[in-house]
Amino acid sequence: MDSESFRVCGKTVVDYIADYMDNIRDRPVLSSVKPGYLYELVPPEAPVKGEDWKTVLADVENIIMPGITHWNSPQFHAFFPTGNSYPAIIGDMLCNGIGSIGFSWIASPACTELEVQVMNWFGKILDLPKEFLNESEGPGGGVLQGSASEATFVCLLAAKDRTTKRIKALDPSMTDGEIKAKLIAYTSDQSNSSVEKAGLLGSMPMRMLKADESGRMTGPILAEAMAEDIARGLIPCYVVATLGTTATCAFDCLEELGPICNENDIWLHVDAAYAGAAFVLPEYRHLMAGVQFADSFDVNLHKWLLVNFDCSALWVKNATYLVDAFNVDRVYLKHRYQSQDPQVPDYRHWQIPLGRRFRSMKMWFVLRLYGVEGLQAHIKKQIHLADLFGKLVNQDPRFEVTTVTMGLVCFRLKGNNDWTKNLYERLMASGQIYLVTATVRSKLVIRFVVCSRLTEEVDVQFAWDEIRGQADRVDSERDVAPASICNGLSGAWPKDKVDCEELTAATPIVVKSLTQG
Amino acid sequence: MDSESFRVCGKTVVDYIADYMDNIRDRPVLSSVKPGYLYELVPPEAPVKGEDWKTVLADVENIIMPGITHWNSPQFHAFFPTGNSYPAIIGDMLCNGIGSIGFSWIASPACTELEVQVMNWFGKILDLPKEFLNESEGPGGGVLQGSASEATFVCLLAAKDRTTKRIKALDPSMTDGEIKAKLIAYTSDQSNSSVEKAGLLGSMPMRMLKADESGRMTGPILAEAMAEDIARGLIPCYVVATLGTTATCAFDCLEELGPICNENDIWLHVDAAYAGAAFVLPEYRHLMAGVQFADSFDVNLHKWLLVNFDCSALWVKNATYLVDAFNVDRVYLKHRYQSQDPQVPDYRHWQIPLGRRFRSMKMWFVLRLYGVEGLQAHIKKQIHLADLFGKLVNQDPRFEVTTVTMGLVCFRLKGNNDWTKNLYERLMASGQIYLVTATVRSKLVIRFVVCSRLTEEVDVQFAWDEIRGQADRVDSERDVAPASICNGLSGAWPKDKVDCEELTAATPIVVKSLTQG
Repeated sequence: MDSESFRVCGKTVVDYIADYMDNIRDRPVLSSVKPGYLYELVPPEAPVKGEDWKTVLADVENIIMPGITHWNSPQFHAFFPTGNSYPAIIGDMLCNGIGSIGFSWIASPACTELEVQVMNWFGKILDLPKEFLNESEGPGGGVLQGSASEATFVCLLAAKDRTTKRIKALDPSMTDGEIKAKLIAYTSDQSNSSVEKAGLLGSMPMRMLKADESGRMTGPILAEAMAEDIARGLIPCYVVATLGTTATCAFDCLEELGPICNENDIWLHVDAAYAGAAFVLPEYRHLMAGVQFADSFDVNLHKWLLVNFDCSALWVKNATYLVDAFNVDRVYLKHRYQSQDPQVPDYRHWQIPLGRRFRSMKMWFVLRLYGVEGLQAHIKKQIHLADLFGKLVNQDPRFEVTTVTMGLVCFRLKGNNDWTKNLYERLMASGQIYLVTATVRSKLVIRFVVCSRLTEEVDVQFAWDEIRGQADRVDSERDVAPASICNGLSGAWPKDKVDCEELTAATPIVVKSLTQG
Repeated sequence: MDSESFRVCGKTVVDYIADYMDNIRDRPVLSSVKPGYLYELVPPEAPVKGEDWKTVLADVENIIMPGITHWNSPQFHAFFPTGNSYPAIIGDMLCNGIGSIGFSWIASPACTELEVQVMNWFGKILDLPKEFLNESEGPGGGVLQGSASEATFVCLLAAKDRTTKRIKALDPSMTDGEIKAKLIAYTSDQSNSSVEKAGLLGSMPMRMLKADESGRMTGPILAEAMAEDIARGLIPCYVVATLGTTATCAFDCLEELGPICNENDIWLHVDAAYAGAAFVLPEYRHLMAGVQFADSFDVNLHKWLLVNFDCSALWVKNATYLVDAFNVDRVYLKHRYQSQDPQVPDYRHWQIPLGRRFRSMKMWFVLRLYGVEGLQAHIKKQIHLADLFGKLVNQDPRFEVTTVTMGLVCFRLKGNNDWTKNLYERLMASGQIYLVTATVRSKLVIRFVVCSRLTEEVDVQFAWDEIRGQADRVDSERDVAPASICNGLSGAWPKDKVDCEELTAATPIVVKSLTQG
């Protein structure tokens, strides 16, 4: 493809994307394809001769689109939002157009320095303690990671290195291996799966402490677990506190956890992947009280802040720990200005991979084109829409609303979990809206999240009408069938393995079998 | 930004990118900014009100471009290429426009299935053993990782898990911790820095074995090291062989290493990040002889195969090992078709992060718009251009050419390293072309790589004219100054820490100080 074809093709694709967004309500949010659908449509071998771009673009519509789950549809209410906006798309086009790999300052000075600067911008927007900013006197700073998963993991490794050196200094007779074998990490059972995975990746047992009734990890919960482990000869090393858990958007008690971690030289990482975005609004910042105790803090711009995946903002109070854990310098990577001056960081030492995209470009476009007020308005509106949905559900006496917070509503049909499960399966079979479930203290709930930036009140009403309509059908079934349709199902579904687990993404057949049950 | 503004802005940016590529020779390949330049130009706070896109786009030209190292300039000959092409940019625009997050099949079926299919395409293009393909009967398959760094690391973790279970089965009295503390990995001292880093990240000692005179890790080298370690009570677990080392593009002897690994149940990972691309041409496939012994194989499409970063193709013979090492399932991630059927993999278990971009889209565009013949022509041309450069250097009796292979030429001025260092500093001070150095068996060499897809014979001639011209200046200095200008410099530069290391990215002042020396 030469420049002239690119000009034509690129502009066609710009229109295609705009048309896609303008008409996204016309597409079913959930794909109805069956596994393997694409292998019938895409030949088993790559073409020998190059093809025309028009053919490929037509295949995007005909082959790809039927298999897309539309994350940016206003009918998408599953998981948490994925960031998406026109300014981010523009910024990423430029990132690709320039195509530099900013692993060190010299490899593209603008790539490093823009990242430093927008991380300072964003840290100030959230009102983070200034020790986290690159512009502070100290060794703190911000860096863009690919995901909160990576942020949690790199901080675990830094914590491991820091603790190993500290213990070694206290007891030089211990080997590094002996020390590392005793290290232990903590999080709550409500933290994201990526936190547990970080423990697996980093070979450090990650204790999943049972959260309190509100889904929070508290000081006493942590203190008790630590005391047990210390008595067993283990060394507490790393704590991951969540601000905004995945299931119910609960906030761990940073003000209680922080002093415990600080007093015991334990690295405190704050995973605010989703809810951290709300701190652009001063009225929600009380929820991060205690952040001054943290060693690291992460929030995904690619979730609730309109930047396309991947763009996860991580700040650390002392970047030296990251650099010490990861630094493997080679001749071909050396350059004149090499230093760990936070003003000119060599970001390759702050992350897992060597290479890195010019991610700050899309973030810069979003921050400038929206402005702080634009971001605040976005978050405010999404919280408002979720509140509205919560009110609608609350007005229906068949339902119980267990959570309304930060753009998330968790609800269920009153009574046995089976009815909520039945409702959920009908919703999935109908496919008008996309939701996922969670189990909270053995209660099955359906999570409703305002995900798309295109969601309006009319979409919230649409979702509620659909849910209410399906609940009517459940009601009619309640009259003829016992609550426990599937043998062996209990309140613990779907955590326990049961045959009915197969039904979580439903088809008409599934509903039929349930109706027959 | 609404849809209408995006249509206008997006098309302007398409033209901006095309103009940038069309006129890239007008821009100096290396930025001449000083550290911190951008902090003077970008205000310390984000704007409160949203700005106009025209203002931001003007700032891209005025603020960002001066700080860009132009990786796609035909005068860029440093490191290895970074993939960049119009089809890839188009594909990534669509990836962002759709904006789905394909962590599981249901999260976007097309995202998973297109990745399966293009990985099969690409595996066949390279003529990989079919056990690596998703379409084989067995548990093998391909997956896109963000980088070769991540590929090396995830395979290390899978190897660790596999070996731990194996040893545990042999000796149930050993704890996992005891086993893991004995595991050891091997690579050569010529492997990429990311391999050493994988050892750090995964808490497994990575022995950097001294390569032979040709820069290769051979069977005897590995066997000797393993025997030493086994005698010390350690358990060999993981070997990373490189096809195309960073310094000199050497190829480890897979046919010797493979049987040793297989006989000893050691995971053999092949890092063909750069040179693996050349296997699109049958005439180079003898260089991967022995690949059938490997457990995993990685090549970066984002290096030499025209796909924008990030896009690293990893195949494994048995994906179960990855899944076993990483699987942390939660209710909110469950879906009906969940399985580890290689036809419908849940790719989140094959990688570090939970989230993932629709990376296969850009790969699909590149494979279809270039076709296999287009990719072959690209690699052929780049190898030809490097060969041409090698011939030019060889014709000058002042120079010694140490490597000409696969688009890479390593050369030096005959004699003491200081003259090559002096030449390199002059080249960097002049800034007409960008190169990096390497130290090979204590000889300093300058690496010349054909990086940009825009490079033509005229650019190779330009580079050679510049190098020859700067060599003339070194010659004139040879007449007046002793070879060892910098006290303490020896043949080992720049591996040893010396003051002169500060001179690797030069300015006129540096050259002056050298001339005065």
